[in-house]
Amino acid sequence: MTAAVPEAGSGVAPGAVMTREIAEQPAVLARILAHGLPDIQAAAEAIRAAQPRFVVFAARGTSDNASLYAKYLVEILLGLPAGLASMSTMTMYGARPRLHGTLFVTVSQSGGSPDLIESTRAAREAGALTLAVTNNPDSALASAADLHLDVLAGPELALPATKTYTAELLTLYLLVDAVRGGTGDSARGIPSAAAEVLARGGEVRDHAREYRFADRLVLTSRGYGYPTVREAALKVMETSYLHAQAFSGADLLHGPLAMIDGDAPVIAVVPDGAGGRALAPVLDRLRAAGARAALLGPPDGFFPLPAGLREEVQPIVQILPLQTLACEIALDRNLDPDAPRALAKVTRTR
Amino acid sequence: MTAAVPEAGSGVAPGAVMTREIAEQPAVLARILAHGLPDIQAAAEAIRAAQPRFVVFAARGTSDNASLYAKYLVEILLGLPAGLASMSTMTMYGARPRLHGTLFVTVSQSGGSPDLIESTRAAREAGALTLAVTNNPDSALASAADLHLDVLAGPELALPATKTYTAELLTLYLLVDAVRGGTGDSARGIPSAAAEVLARGGEVRDHAREYRFADRLVLTSRGYGYPTVREAALKVMETSYLHAQAFSGADLLHGPLAMIDGDAPVIAVVPDGAGGRALAPVLDRLRAAGARAALLGPPDGFFPLPAGLREEVQPIVQILPLQTLACEIALDRNLDPDAPRALAKVTRTR
Repeated sequence: MTAAVPEAGSGVAPGAVMTREIAEQPAVLARILAHGLPDIQAAAEAIRAAQPRFVVFAARGTSDNASLYAKYLVEILLGLPAGLASMSTMTMYGARPRLHGTLFVTVSQSGGSPDLIESTRAAREAGALTLAVTNNPDSALASAADLHLDVLAGPELALPATKTYTAELLTLYLLVDAVRGGTGDSARGIPSAAAEVLARGGEVRDHAREYRFADRLVLTSRGYGYPTVREAALKVMETSYLHAQAFSGADLLHGPLAMIDGDAPVIAVVPDGAGGRALAPVLDRLRAAGARAALLGPPDGFFPLPAGLREEVQPIVQILPLQTLACEIALDRNLDPDAPRALAKVTRTR
Repeated sequence: MTAAVPEAGSGVAPGAVMTREIAEQPAVLARILAHGLPDIQAAAEAIRAAQPRFVVFAARGTSDNASLYAKYLVEILLGLPAGLASMSTMTMYGARPRLHGTLFVTVSQSGGSPDLIESTRAAREAGALTLAVTNNPDSALASAADLHLDVLAGPELALPATKTYTAELLTLYLLVDAVRGGTGDSARGIPSAAAEVLARGGEVRDHAREYRFADRLVLTSRGYGYPTVREAALKVMETSYLHAQAFSGADLLHGPLAMIDGDAPVIAVVPDGAGGRALAPVLDRLRAAGARAALLGPPDGFFPLPAGLREEVQPIVQILPLQTLACEIALDRNLDPDAPRALAKVTRTR
């Protein structure tokens, strides 16, 4: 722990802030398990009482990838249909969908984006039960929603979100688990698995060199691994300015596969479970197209992940080496991942 | 009209089949308006009777982009929340969401992909009203659903879908309009607008040269224009093997903007309406980042679109010059857009 917290771009070494925030994640995850559960249980109680028939998530950027993960959880673990909001329908076109029986969940690091606040107010007026999941309990978004959950990540100063992403994932997992009556037991091993993975940062640094001269990157996975590759692509775009694209394995076969050849670097995230099994034929097609996909997860991949975690919580650990990878590629290119060009920490979209 | 229909990759000139199918679109759109409305009205009647509270779309590839367009229509014109299905939750993880009160819509050119058929059966068992929108009334998907709409595009032989995309868009628009009691009046001008746009193919050929040496392309729009840029990116990836990425303008500002500089070609689709107005600040940010975005739509763009169409039907015409652009970039690179490497017309994903 440093005594004084360096701010992004304030003269500390490039990437120092992002690196520190990546390293904080085991402690953040442990904090959520130690202190977050009472609020999560209370929110779950309110949701159970409302008996929603449908869940809509609204978010942007990294938090949108966390929402996609939560959409899988809601559909698979709760048996409720779920969707990601196209916020512009409400903010630009004035749509006021009838939302009685709907749980409307916003996810946001800052809780400050006007479109999320406006969507939440509109959803509440339209009859939805609204929940905001943020890293800022004093935010306008937290006040606008019926329910709020603080992801307890502490101030995030690097522009690329890292610890707030995994904090959102764990909070959303614990919430869904609580709604179905669970106590988060399958998440107990997450902080130590996260620490174990982050301790192997040297393996990632070695792998990062492969991308030194790449100008694009394709990432793929299936099922629970798909949000992970979307978030990894976003991290790489933000920090390294590589054109990184993430596809679900099924979508990749419906067209984009044509652009893959031996020159296109590909990273495949292979979940340990149904998602990994469903990815196998996609990997075969990639090999047939000449691509040599680097595998994250399995024992024979470039970065094996610890065994023993249930598939639905693996994403919380899967993303960690990819955050480090994005940071390392940027440093390799003499870029400062703490403060990417053209970006601001709170993005105000409408 | 040709007497004998040449098949893709069968020795006719490269791109001849895709070019012909692009050119057929005004006739296909006119056919839907002339002959499709009775079935569309009947399906709308069944949907109104069922009083769905939520709509889920399931599709892959081009049809997934058509579904995204329909999601905007449902939210804005019908005031119902809607979502795009993560099919793997049902096909890989065995999720059986409770779908009473849900309209479950699959969209598919072939009606042959096993995941769509399985999802439809599962949704029907789970209580949803199911509708299949396909170009093949004899398909297994058409039989599996409660309701079926034929998009009447005729056989599509080129691997990249073109006429089935706009046929899906128009059919879905007419359906949504019929559910709210309309008769499709605002679509009457579409076939002639489409013919007018396609007659200006030479302007697209001139513009295509700009991308001769590009290896990546970023496309952006907002609102109703967003499905258009997603579909355009898919066409470019399929035919030209360019790494093309589409972002909603809002999402672009939440991270990916960092990778944009003066070297990255950018195409912005500017809807005439709220979507175009909301895109203006995004275009300012792109300019500030050094990008010179080529604009599709406005009078000062590289390809102005005809005025007078309501914003919600503009996507049916917006995509046409971008289909031609994808085809032309491929031909410029000595590729055959009719038969992209590694792809099959019916993609069987699970």
